[in-house]
Amino acid sequence: MGNHQEPRVAGSLRLLASHLHLRDRQVMVPETFPAGELADPVHRLPESELATACTLLVTVGGDGSMLYAARRAAGSDTPLLGINRGRLGFLTDISPEQMLDSLDSVLAGDYVTEHRMMLEARLEGGHEQRSGLAFNDIVIKRHDETGRMFDCQTWVDGTYVNTHAGDGLVIASPTGSTAYALSCGGPIVEPGLQAIVLTPICPHTLSDRPLVIAAHRQIEVRLPAGYPDAAAVSCDGNILGRLTAGERLCVATAGDRVTLLHPPGYDYFEILRGKLHWGGDPRERGGRNSPER
Amino acid sequence: MGNHQEPRVAGSLRLLASHLHLRDRQVMVPETFPAGELADPVHRLPESELATACTLLVTVGGDGSMLYAARRAAGSDTPLLGINRGRLGFLTDISPEQMLDSLDSVLAGDYVTEHRMMLEARLEGGHEQRSGLAFNDIVIKRHDETGRMFDCQTWVDGTYVNTHAGDGLVIASPTGSTAYALSCGGPIVEPGLQAIVLTPICPHTLSDRPLVIAAHRQIEVRLPAGYPDAAAVSCDGNILGRLTAGERLCVATAGDRVTLLHPPGYDYFEILRGKLHWGGDPRERGGRNSPER
Amino acid sequence: MGNHQEPRVAGSLRLLASHLHLRDRQVMVPETFPAGELADPVHRLPESELATACTLLVTVGGDGSMLYAARRAAGSDTPLLGINRGRLGFLTDISPEQMLDSLDSVLAGDYVTEHRMMLEARLEGGHEQRSGLAFNDIVIKRHDETGRMFDCQTWVDGTYVNTHAGDGLVIASPTGSTAYALSCGGPIVEPGLQAIVLTPICPHTLSDRPLVIAAHRQIEVRLPAGYPDAAAVSCDGNILGRLTAGERLCVATAGDRVTLLHPPGYDYFEILRGKLHWGGDPRERGGRNSPER
Amino acid sequence: MGNHQEPRVAGSLRLLASHLHLRDRQVMVPETFPAGELADPVHRLPESELATACTLLVTVGGDGSMLYAARRAAGSDTPLLGINRGRLGFLTDISPEQMLDSLDSVLAGDYVTEHRMMLEARLEGGHEQRSGLAFNDIVIKRHDETGRMFDCQTWVDGTYVNTHAGDGLVIASPTGSTAYALSCGGPIVEPGLQAIVLTPICPHTLSDRPLVIAAHRQIEVRLPAGYPDAAAVSCDGNILGRLTAGERLCVATAGDRVTLLHPPGYDYFEILRGKLHWGGDPRERGGRNSPER
Repeated sequence: MGNHQEPRVAGSLRLLASHLHLRDRQVMVPETFPAGELADPVHRLPESELATACTLLVTVGGDGSMLYAARRAAGSDTPLLGINRGRLGFLTDISPEQMLDSLDSVLAGDYVTEHRMMLEARLEGGHEQRSGLAFNDIVIKRHDETGRMFDCQTWVDGTYVNTHAGDGLVIASPTGSTAYALSCGGPIVEPGLQAIVLTPICPHTLSDRPLVIAAHRQIEVRLPAGYPDAAAVSCDGNILGRLTAGERLCVATAGDRVTLLHPPGYDYFEILRGKLHWGGDPRERGGRNSPER
Repeated sequence: MGNHQEPRVAGSLRLLASHLHLRDRQVMVPETFPAGELADPVHRLPESELATACTLLVTVGGDGSMLYAARRAAGSDTPLLGINRGRLGFLTDISPEQMLDSLDSVLAGDYVTEHRMMLEARLEGGHEQRSGLAFNDIVIKRHDETGRMFDCQTWVDGTYVNTHAGDGLVIASPTGSTAYALSCGGPIVEPGLQAIVLTPICPHTLSDRPLVIAAHRQIEVRLPAGYPDAAAVSCDGNILGRLTAGERLCVATAGDRVTLLHPPGYDYFEILRGKLHWGGDPRERGGRNSPER
Repeated sequence: MGNHQEPRVAGSLRLLASHLHLRDRQVMVPETFPAGELADPVHRLPESELATACTLLVTVGGDGSMLYAARRAAGSDTPLLGINRGRLGFLTDISPEQMLDSLDSVLAGDYVTEHRMMLEARLEGGHEQRSGLAFNDIVIKRHDETGRMFDCQTWVDGTYVNTHAGDGLVIASPTGSTAYALSCGGPIVEPGLQAIVLTPICPHTLSDRPLVIAAHRQIEVRLPAGYPDAAAVSCDGNILGRLTAGERLCVATAGDRVTLLHPPGYDYFEILRGKLHWGGDPRERGGRNSPER
Repeated sequence: MGNHQEPRVAGSLRLLASHLHLRDRQVMVPETFPAGELADPVHRLPESELATACTLLVTVGGDGSMLYAARRAAGSDTPLLGINRGRLGFLTDISPEQMLDSLDSVLAGDYVTEHRMMLEARLEGGHEQRSGLAFNDIVIKRHDETGRMFDCQTWVDGTYVNTHAGDGLVIASPTGSTAYALSCGGPIVEPGLQAIVLTPICPHTLSDRPLVIAAHRQIEVRLPAGYPDAAAVSCDGNILGRLTAGERLCVATAGDRVTLLHPPGYDYFEILRGKLHWGGDPRERGGRNSPER
C-alpha cells in the first residue's frame, strides 16, 4: 500500500513489486492502483480484503500511511512493514535504501515482531451509534474557530476524574504519545507499556495535566448537561462524529492489536533520538552559562 | 453596560443607576436594554454612541463584558470601570459589595488610572479588507475538527521569523497574556509593558516557544504558498474573517488604547495571585519530598 | 508514628493511643517518643522493629511522614494508614476529624487495600555499594549552586536512551508522579499502573521530554566518561550518595511494595482534584475570551 | 580574548593577530596569554585594563566566553565582536571561516551595532554588600542536593508578587531568555525589548508561571522570615554569594550596557532558527495525524 500519486512512493512500490516477483512471492495491491502502475503481474483486490488475503502488509509512505494501514489490518493478524519515503518515521523505520535488504531479511524470517495496542472509540446515547479504531489517538475538540473555551468531563471506570475546560482532550495510545499528544504537553510512553494517556489541549486550569492510566480502563467523555454546542470526535485525524450533551464517548483498548515487523537491530530509542533531535555531542553545546573560560 | 438577562448583573445595574441618580449624575444605557429594566430615568442610546456620549463607562459582568466594552470604547478617551458579578476578574476588579463605595471614590476623583494597549488586526491581499481591534488577543487557527496540522508563517518588521506547524498562533497583548495565551504556554506580561506575545498553539516542533517582541513591531502572518485550506482569524474570540494562501494578516499595536479606572489601592499582582491560586502559607505545603520528620 | 514535637500531631497521637486502648488494642510507638508523651500504656520499640512487630502502622503528619514510614515498613507486609494534620495529603487521606471513625472502620475490617510499588536505587562500580528505597522518587542532580549544566546518560534494559543535559533527572514511581516530577513537567500516573517515569529537570534540549516506561525495566544512569564533577543521588529527598564518572546508578522496581489502607469510599481522583485545585463550577469561569454578552 | 588552551581557539587567535598586524592595527591580549602563543608582536595587558585600552574587543569561543567578555567590558563603551569555534552561538555569530572577511568589514566601518542591557545584582542587609553584573541571568537556588523545596519571595518596585516554592528563580535579561530561563519554561524575548523575565525553577505551584516585566523595575528577592537555610546567588553561572533570611537580593537593569558588533546582514531570528532547530520544509514533516493517503 502507498500513495502511488507521490512519485517517490510510486518508484518504491514498483521496485518492491519487481523484487517480490523475483523472490517468487505473490504481490497484491489495492484495486484503486492504476492498472499500468506496476510493471509486474499483481493481484488487485478491494482494499478492505487486502489485509486478510496477504501474509505481510507493506506500506510505503509516512507515518500517516502506516496509521491508515494499521486500521485496515485490524481484525486480521497480518503484520505490517513500514518503508519511509526518505525520512525516518516513528512507524516507518525502513529507509528506501535499506528496503530490499530489509525485505529479504523479513522473507528469510530474520525480523523483530512487535505488538502494539489500538484504541476503540464508541459514540453512544445518540440517535446512531458509531465506533472507530485509532492507532495514535482519539481527539475531542470543539468545532469552533474562536478562542472560546470548551468543557468536557472525563470518567475512568465509572469514577469522575475532571472537567477539562480548554480546547479539548487527546486520548492517546503509547504509539500516539509521540504524535499530537506530545505537542499538547503529554509524556512519551514506551510502545510496550499497556497504558493510555489523557492530555488536555490548552487547558484553562494550569494544573490540568496529562494523566497516564492503565490500558484496561474504560474511559467515558461527556459534555456538561445542557451544553449548547457539539464537540467533534476524530480517530487518527479522521472525523468519527459529533458528541453532544447527553451522549457519551466511550474509549477503551481495542480487542485487535497491530503487529509490526522491524528489521533486526530495531531500536525504539534510536528512532526517538532521531525524530526529536536529541543528543549530538553534549560537549559541543554552548549557550547556557557554561563558564568556558 | 452589562448582560441584563443575567439576574445578578441586572440587580447590580439597577443599584448602580439608582445610586448615580442619587448622586445627581446622568445615567446612559444601551438602547437594547428593556424599557422597564431600570427604575430610575435613564438616557437610552445606540451602543455605538454610548462611549462617546458618556464620561465614564461602567461594565457589570465578567472579563468578557469588559473586552466587549473596551472595543466599543476605542476611539473615545472614555475610561472604563469594571464591576464583577461576585467573582474576581482580571479586568473587573470591583466586587458587587464594594461597588457603591468604589463608585463614590471614583466620582470624588479618588482613583488609579491605567492605560493599556490594544491590538489591531487587518486582513489584506484578499477580495475585501477587514480590520478589527482586540484587547486580549488575535488568534489564527485552522478551521478544522481533526488533529491535522496547520502551518502559518510569521514575519516581524518584514523579517521572517518561523513557520509554525501545529494548531495555530495566539498574538496577545499584555492584557491577553493571562487569557488564552497562558493556556498555550505563554508567559505573564505585566500590563504596562509595551510588548506583544506570539504563542504557538500545540506546536509540532517542541522548541517553537512563545516569543515576546516590542509593541512597535509590525507582525505579518501568512499561510504557505499553495496552502489548500483557510485559517480562521478571531479578535477577542469574535471571528474577523478567513486567511488563505496569498493573503496577509497584519497585526500591530492599535492607535487607540484603553483607559481603566481602578479603586485606590489597586494591585495587579494581588489579582494575579487570586486568579492563579498562588500563595497560601507555604509552610502549610506538603506533597513534595519535604522530610517532615 | 509521627513527629510528636508538632503540637497538632502530638494531640492526634494521644487521642489515637487512648482510642486504641479503649478498643483493647496494643499500641506500639518508636522508643524515641518521650516517656510521658502518651497518657496510656504503650510498648516502646526501636523504630526499625516497629513495622514488623505491629499489624497496622498508623502515621500522623504530612506526606513526608508517610514516605518515611513506607520505607520503614518495607520488607514487612504491615499496612499503613495515613492521618493528616488538617490538610489533605496525597497519601494521608484521613482528616483528624474522621480519624477515630476511620480507625474503627479499619478495625472492623471495613477498608480498601491498595498496593503501591516502590523503587530501589543502587550505586555500583564505586568503592562502596549503597542502596536505598524510594516511595516517591530517586533524583540525580549536580551538586552545584551555579546554573551550570550537568550531563547524565540513561539506559533502559541495557539500551542507550539519551544524554540529558540540564539540572538532572527524576525517576519517579506512580506515587511520586504527583510530587517533584510534576513540578518538572512530568505526567500524573495512576498509582496502580506498573510504570516508572523519567523526567529531565530543566533540560537544555527542549524536546527532552518525560518518558514513561514499564515497571519491570532496569534503568541505569551514568555520567559521561571523564566527567569531572560528581552528582548527588537522593531517595525521597534523602541523600543516598554520590555518582561519579565510571560508576553506575541502577534503578528498578523494588521487591517490596507498600500496602496502604484507606477508609471505604476512597477515591484517588477526588484527592487529585482537591490537591491540584481542579474543578469548581466551570460555568463560573471567566478570563478567557468568553463572549459573555 | 579566548581560551588559548583550546587548540581551535588558539589557532583562530593566532590567525586574527597576524591579520590585524597585516592591517596595521595594534593587537592587545590579556597578560595571562603565554608569551610564545602569538607569532606577531602584541601588547600584553592585565585583563581588567584590556577593554578600556582597546577600541574593539574580539572574543573567540562559545557564548560563555562572550558572557565573560561582556562583564569585563562593562563600564567602557568598547564594542564586542564574537567569533565562534565552529558552532553558531547566540552571541558568537561569526564562524571561523568568515572571521577574516567579517573583521575586514568591521574595520572598514561596515557593520551592525546592537546595544543590549545587562542586569545588576546586589546582596544587601547582610554583613557585607556584594554586587555583580550579569549579561544572561541572575539565579537564586537552594544550595542543596536533595529534592527538598526552597521558598523565595519576590517584590517588584516594592509591591509583593509571590512566594515561589520550588528549586529557585531565574531573573533573565532578553539575552538570557534563550539560556537557562528557556530550559525552565520561560519565553524568548527579543534582545531589543527593555524587559526582564522572572522564571521560577520547577515550581511547586503549577500556575507559578514566567513573568515578564519592564526593565526599569526594581526587583527584590527575600527568603521567608526565619528560613533556616541559605540560597546561592549566581551571575551568569558565577557565584555572587549567599542569601539568608533577613537579607535582600536587589536586581535591576545595570547602568552599563553591552555593545555588540555584527557583520552586515545580521538576523537574530535566523540565529534563533538555527539554534532551536526550527523549520526545515514543513511539507516534509510527518508523525502527526497527517492523513497522507
